[in-house]
Amino acid sequence: MAIVLGANRYGKAEVRLVHVARDTDRHELTDLNVSVALAGDLADTHLAGDNAKVLPTDSQKNTVYAFARRHGVGQIEEFGLLLARHFVDSQPSITRARVHLEQFGWQRLGDHSFARTGGGTRTAMVTYDGAQAWVVSGVTDLVLLNSTDSEFDGFVADRYTTLAGTRDRILATAVDARWRHATATCDDWGSAYAEARRLLVESFVDTYSRSLQQTLFAMGRRVLEGRPGIVEVRLALPNRHHFLVDLAPFGLDNPGEIFNATDRPYGLIEGTVLRDDAPPGEAAWTF
Amino acid sequence: MAIVLGANRYGKAEVRLVHVARDTDRHELTDLNVSVALAGDLADTHLAGDNAKVLPTDSQKNTVYAFARRHGVGQIEEFGLLLARHFVDSQPSITRARVHLEQFGWQRLGDHSFARTGGGTRTAMVTYDGAQAWVVSGVTDLVLLNSTDSEFDGFVADRYTTLAGTRDRILATAVDARWRHATATCDDWGSAYAEARRLLVESFVDTYSRSLQQTLFAMGRRVLEGRPGIVEVRLALPNRHHFLVDLAPFGLDNPGEIFNATDRPYGLIEGTVLRDDAPPGEAAWTF
Amino acid sequence: MAIVLGANRYGKAEVRLVHVARDTDRHELTDLNVSVALAGDLADTHLAGDNAKVLPTDSQKNTVYAFARRHGVGQIEEFGLLLARHFVDSQPSITRARVHLEQFGWQRLGDHSFARTGGGTRTAMVTYDGAQAWVVSGVTDLVLLNSTDSEFDGFVADRYTTLAGTRDRILATAVDARWRHATATCDDWGSAYAEARRLLVESFVDTYSRSLQQTLFAMGRRVLEGRPGIVEVRLALPNRHHFLVDLAPFGLDNPGEIFNATDRPYGLIEGTVLRDDAPPGEAAWTF
Amino acid sequence: MAIVLGANRYGKAEVRLVHVARDTDRHELTDLNVSVALAGDLADTHLAGDNAKVLPTDSQKNTVYAFARRHGVGQIEEFGLLLARHFVDSQPSITRARVHLEQFGWQRLGDHSFARTGGGTRTAMVTYDGAQAWVVSGVTDLVLLNSTDSEFDGFVADRYTTLAGTRDRILATAVDARWRHATATCDDWGSAYAEARRLLVESFVDTYSRSLQQTLFAMGRRVLEGRPGIVEVRLALPNRHHFLVDLAPFGLDNPGEIFNATDRPYGLIEGTVLRDDAPPGEAAWTF
Repeated sequence: MAIVLGANRYGKAEVRLVHVARDTDRHELTDLNVSVALAGDLADTHLAGDNAKVLPTDSQKNTVYAFARRHGVGQIEEFGLLLARHFVDSQPSITRARVHLEQFGWQRLGDHSFARTGGGTRTAMVTYDGAQAWVVSGVTDLVLLNSTDSEFDGFVADRYTTLAGTRDRILATAVDARWRHATATCDDWGSAYAEARRLLVESFVDTYSRSLQQTLFAMGRRVLEGRPGIVEVRLALPNRHHFLVDLAPFGLDNPGEIFNATDRPYGLIEGTVLRDDAPPGEAAWTF
Repeated sequence: MAIVLGANRYGKAEVRLVHVARDTDRHELTDLNVSVALAGDLADTHLAGDNAKVLPTDSQKNTVYAFARRHGVGQIEEFGLLLARHFVDSQPSITRARVHLEQFGWQRLGDHSFARTGGGTRTAMVTYDGAQAWVVSGVTDLVLLNSTDSEFDGFVADRYTTLAGTRDRILATAVDARWRHATATCDDWGSAYAEARRLLVESFVDTYSRSLQQTLFAMGRRVLEGRPGIVEVRLALPNRHHFLVDLAPFGLDNPGEIFNATDRPYGLIEGTVLRDDAPPGEAAWTF
Repeated sequence: MAIVLGANRYGKAEVRLVHVARDTDRHELTDLNVSVALAGDLADTHLAGDNAKVLPTDSQKNTVYAFARRHGVGQIEEFGLLLARHFVDSQPSITRARVHLEQFGWQRLGDHSFARTGGGTRTAMVTYDGAQAWVVSGVTDLVLLNSTDSEFDGFVADRYTTLAGTRDRILATAVDARWRHATATCDDWGSAYAEARRLLVESFVDTYSRSLQQTLFAMGRRVLEGRPGIVEVRLALPNRHHFLVDLAPFGLDNPGEIFNATDRPYGLIEGTVLRDDAPPGEAAWTF
Repeated sequence: MAIVLGANRYGKAEVRLVHVARDTDRHELTDLNVSVALAGDLADTHLAGDNAKVLPTDSQKNTVYAFARRHGVGQIEEFGLLLARHFVDSQPSITRARVHLEQFGWQRLGDHSFARTGGGTRTAMVTYDGAQAWVVSGVTDLVLLNSTDSEFDGFVADRYTTLAGTRDRILATAVDARWRHATATCDDWGSAYAEARRLLVESFVDTYSRSLQQTLFAMGRRVLEGRPGIVEVRLALPNRHHFLVDLAPFGLDNPGEIFNATDRPYGLIEGTVLRDDAPPGEAAWTF
């Protein structure tokens, strides 16, 4: 029996890059959090502390900043592809790269003034192995709530079940959605993102929900139906419970008006929705 | 020498209340975090564990929920006044009450669908002593950024100064602003809030800034000039540093384009702006 | 009516300083978070953007690091005094300084190896006005729990009270305690801290509690009784509710065994305990 | 082309369970955060909102509490196995269960008094598919630091490299380690955990490090060498950078004494160390 090195990777995480395009008096602002992970022939550093094949994570950080200046940032999917390809193509020992990007939203207030928005953070996750590239786009922390048109009933009742079924409840979640593109090219990543996000929100809004699972599937299906370039959607939807407060002790009814929004525990519904002809793409997700 | 009890208070903090007004098919959503603090004749519980004058914090929580059902929530300043007055007026041992409220923003997506927004959290802080009430409104975590029209130069240079003056920098902050009203009555707390928030944002945007202190004063002054019912503004403005990245080692210039947004340390600028004829109001702040 | 500048201050917050004393092979590690706030004749920068009296917050940060090298760090109270005095005594426009320090705990694992500990963060808050200095020491986020010897009963029951009294409950809190010293000198700040912390913990442990308020007073009194150099203790004790889970639906009793530890809401008990001959010291707290 | 449901799961996350064993006056405290995820024949709820095969997440929460009363908690690996087996064996539609547990540390202060400790959180991740069970134990947020005996040199220098090699630096990380057991049975999970944790810490302390990767491998190897029942170790080690502060502008040297501890970006080193005869166990990790 021997002890061996298995899968491994390394990189610089959470490089905060703010880019101001100031070609005209009307500035454009891009606010990113970029994380790089590289894999390849890295046994020597693990086994013997020989770093001859290790590109420092500090250099990776520098590359993020230098590339932003040299090439601009543009759409995060493109910027991620540029970085991922650079690391694999320029480093003999690196055979795979993963770049993860978060883009924080800002609303324009003036030619050079902005306010941070909520409404979820745009994400991209780009993978490149020297031959093929995979692109996953996404949105995270997009908090949505329906104050009706949600039930939960007809479920299994075992000996530990005390929950009563309901025909009317609040359904609230913080959407974490990621979608895999068929190819690593796109005419317009920006509108592709905006459309996918719009479809997610619309389907949450107009689905009469009998379970959060049903809503999850409806959201994924809507994206796939509306965006032919997307082949797979993965969703993680926490069920942010809003409990009806019992006001009877105070002589008051509570017809779906007063809720206690709780932190923990929460339900967590996770699922994949995909085309049955989706090309294999596990490499897009697992690294 | 004796050991004595000094100032003290107690209450329930962070009661999460979500109110759905469903008089019509078009629901209204109010999402609050309410904290209560009460003070009065509470020596017995401290000194002897005699709770005969202690209204449980659990009852305070219940009151928040019951009042929301009985009276609706409306504007947070009014809801806070209702609660503060109730505790003092109904409890013989309680002589002062402070209610702090946060209201989270939601954007309407449909008749009964909503998305959480960013753009800062509305706050109110209400104090009542049995005779007088004070109202402080505010906004917190309102993140603003100017990508130019900000300098910092001409400052003191001591032996520990290495900073070079600059005529062009990013100015970014997370506004924490609170403003004291002359009286505890207002025709329209909602538009009073919206106007004060608008004045804060506008003054941040259109002030050419030579220091964040100058911007702070400009913001407070603008609110006071535009809203006669407000007598004092307190601002805490972290200076969220965005450092220009040195790209010279890579043969690149950086004409105000590529920035590293840092977490810590940060500057912190705090100040009060007030009318010189503002009535005394320390009780509005200190409890 | 005119609009005027009120109280104001500025400084660098959260300077992270790690100091390694390596005079011998057995290193000593000090891990601090230092925040500086300065006040004085700063109207010009607020009103006109004239920074001629402003020592940059960047210089304040540099001073923290340089002083750590020049003087060592030693006890945080002393390091804070050194810094506060420096800023006021060296800057003509600065008349008051406040330095706040947090010291994170590390356990020794070897001559130059350490593991971060929990058990609360040591704090100090030092104030200097050019003539007098005030020192407040403290501990924060010290989480303590008694699994019995805690009741809460005999309280006021109003129309919103549903809580039943209990003769046996879990009492849990995250202690935030600060204590004011009679003078700004002390032979041994380190053992003064250790003793005060020990007294807080011991009194929490051995007080049979009828309310968290009673425990609070007992904790403050114990510190004052045991440490003559301390004149005032301020405590903020969140009541971290642990609710007994109702297991009756499953045919099980629950004799104080199974609890749900909740996040929000929580009770918050705040109070001051002091000697009746304590010298005035509001300047030690308010800045 | 059709749109289909792919992998999915659901469950209750972050059930906070505090268990007090009070058989004697000397209480024992166990403080857990339990998350359950179930998978199986759940297409109907996703596709049609038919919940006939859905055991509510609320029932899962109840089960956690009821099992703690009925069976005690004991070691978290055992408690997780009990729960995972229960859900699969009692629910016809559920074919796989994953239970994740965090155990927070408490130090005894007295017969019924405790203080929360730091030093990392113990974890367990248990998986059961109706036939086989897998157990992964772990520790997370265990923060370790060596103030010397760490270098980083001899690395690749590309055109974006500015980092200078160093023969002496601080090496600090927050260990996130998980180890897979050969089987789901163990005579003493408690000492198995304590030993694995001890080996991780010892190897961090006594490894002269030329890269964090080397340290990572050394840590995994030490666990595998010392614990025959463990077949695979997965480690994620953030490199918490401590940068030497340049004090030359102030006429001071800095011989490895004064450091700036930064938040972001950070290096992130991830790797697997395993026996070459480890049985296949991907199901222990992926769910």
